[in-house]
Amino acid sequence: MDIEDLPTPSLILERAVVTRNTQRMGARMTEHDVALRPHVKTAKSVPVAKLATLGHSGAITVSTLAEAAYFLAHGFADMTYAVCLAPNKVAAAATLIAQGADLKVIIDSIDAAQAIVGHPGQERFKVLVEIDCGDGRTGLLPDAPDLLNIAQIIDGAPQAELLGVLTHGGHSYGARDIAGIQRIAREEREAVIHAAQRLRDAGLPCPVVSAGSTPTAMHGESYEGITEMRPGVYVFFDLDQLSRQACGPNDLALSVLGTVIAHNRHVGQIVTDTGALAMSKDISATTRWPDAGYGAVCNARTLAPIEGLHVAKVSQEHGIVPVSDPAQYDLLPIGTKIRVLPNHACITASAYTHYEVVDGTEVVDRWERINGW
Amino acid sequence: MDIEDLPTPSLILERAVVTRNTQRMGARMTEHDVALRPHVKTAKSVPVAKLATLGHSGAITVSTLAEAAYFLAHGFADMTYAVCLAPNKVAAAATLIAQGADLKVIIDSIDAAQAIVGHPGQERFKVLVEIDCGDGRTGLLPDAPDLLNIAQIIDGAPQAELLGVLTHGGHSYGARDIAGIQRIAREEREAVIHAAQRLRDAGLPCPVVSAGSTPTAMHGESYEGITEMRPGVYVFFDLDQLSRQACGPNDLALSVLGTVIAHNRHVGQIVTDTGALAMSKDISATTRWPDAGYGAVCNARTLAPIEGLHVAKVSQEHGIVPVSDPAQYDLLPIGTKIRVLPNHACITASAYTHYEVVDGTEVVDRWERINGW
Repeated sequence: MDIEDLPTPSLILERAVVTRNTQRMGARMTEHDVALRPHVKTAKSVPVAKLATLGHSGAITVSTLAEAAYFLAHGFADMTYAVCLAPNKVAAAATLIAQGADLKVIIDSIDAAQAIVGHPGQERFKVLVEIDCGDGRTGLLPDAPDLLNIAQIIDGAPQAELLGVLTHGGHSYGARDIAGIQRIAREEREAVIHAAQRLRDAGLPCPVVSAGSTPTAMHGESYEGITEMRPGVYVFFDLDQLSRQACGPNDLALSVLGTVIAHNRHVGQIVTDTGALAMSKDISATTRWPDAGYGAVCNARTLAPIEGLHVAKVSQEHGIVPVSDPAQYDLLPIGTKIRVLPNHACITASAYTHYEVVDGTEVVDRWERINGW
Repeated sequence: MDIEDLPTPSLILERAVVTRNTQRMGARMTEHDVALRPHVKTAKSVPVAKLATLGHSGAITVSTLAEAAYFLAHGFADMTYAVCLAPNKVAAAATLIAQGADLKVIIDSIDAAQAIVGHPGQERFKVLVEIDCGDGRTGLLPDAPDLLNIAQIIDGAPQAELLGVLTHGGHSYGARDIAGIQRIAREEREAVIHAAQRLRDAGLPCPVVSAGSTPTAMHGESYEGITEMRPGVYVFFDLDQLSRQACGPNDLALSVLGTVIAHNRHVGQIVTDTGALAMSKDISATTRWPDAGYGAVCNARTLAPIEGLHVAKVSQEHGIVPVSDPAQYDLLPIGTKIRVLPNHACITASAYTHYEVVDGTEVVDRWERINGW
């Protein structure tokens, strides 16, 4: 099928680009002698996870227990659930372990450690303590006294096994350029290996030292002391990553196919069906590129950006593209297909149940994805 | 089941509030002698549509053809697809008509009119011409010459029937108070009845004069000349509507149940599992209430807002709640359930496959919803 025969909006995935992106990251991690545990929260799709784990062990990172169950059902057993395990999720995690998941969980509090060691079942939890390397989201500071307290609770319990430490240099998403990313990559590495050393100095096990974000995995200069990296959005990249130089313009694998549904000449805009639900309300790239809006409008066949056209405003099913030159109406008559590059691939993709996989302008496959919790 | 036994995040719907909201709007439209054609784009759910159409004809408004197919399959035949019909959607719309949908479509261009009258099938399209009453999204200005040109193309074709005109006072979402909403309600009414008069003066049929947005349906002073109103978000309301005085604080029917997953005391924040996917990245209420963030944090059992707590920052599965008073950590220990009131109900709900319907703290039902296109 030709791409223009798809209904709109549809979520389009460039097979060649996702293949190249995953191969490059796989090779880079091999070269640095670091295990790759890709974060599947971006694609949430088995075929993409297969590409991303090629040449590596098949280990993955998940962001929800729904992802864990889906990937387990499709043969991925080795997984780290990289969101602090809340007490109310211990039972669901135990069920996954009982079903065969080699599930690793992360915590950053004594309360969560006690919820794990106090769970009534026979399942054995593999636990990493989360370290805050400067991202300021969750995790203990590398020097926090609680690191050892939590580790000792886990290490001393028959239902749990201390695996080590984990961090996420998520503040690399706010870097302005490669130099900024490299500085954060150093912070990420130093924080997590320092925490690992504290565990070892206390006689505690720490076989796993886990780090990673897409920018720091793409541009870090040293991973010495780190055992695995967990980048995620690199499989697709997006305008936000491009705006921060984490990738190049040819690395963007994901776009939304839309249709021009109206010309509003008295206001000066082309209206498309790439609205708030089709694109999401994420405007992260506007931090560096105020004109990015809700996405960059591209030629539907070539994915070449159309100079000056972006989705500036959205309502639920309408995407508004301001027009500065009336010739743009003739370029994009009502009914014309367009593609829109999203700000943040992980968020935009979440509105869709599947990817329409293309090779050039030919639709060659349909890959399902999992949503929800 | 008790609400706190649900997995998190879950989408919670207050049965008493959605019932009251729908009854009030139903009664208000009856009182004003205007047909109610509720926009089901907010709830996308059959049980909610049944409440919303109670005491009226059962007519609905849809925002996607996926909604149209879903509601048709559940006995709702009379529907208006209130997004300009693009040429590539004519065939799918014709299929729905062939399946029994009494589908009305809207257009604002000669190109779209020609796509409809040129479609090869036997299906008869009922068509409304969209009028821009000041919202500036789609639609013709009430005085635009093309109004008559488009109407004549439709009226003259055997495959089409001219029903009249339709407008959406969507700029009422930007009003600051009730007086502002009432001004826009007047603009909406005047624009669409003027366009209707032009059709009638030209000897064209115009049985339907359709208008509506939640604010203008809640607070308009006169609907004379309007035959039907199409409010949508009033079934749930949300922080954005509340911030503009379209509703009161007890009218908010939708919230997200979440869990406190971490305390990050070195940064000064409580971290929850109500992140970007659970809440959406919509921050519409911040226009009037900068502190609304991604949602207002409430007590899980009472839905009473907790003074000073809001989701200020989100990543995919993390919602960050800044803490100004350390006593708030004791108030919300790790594992505590919270509820978060969203900015924009239509967008937040789209991440979920169903509503957990509650009566107080008791989960009394589960209502499915349709997503996608």
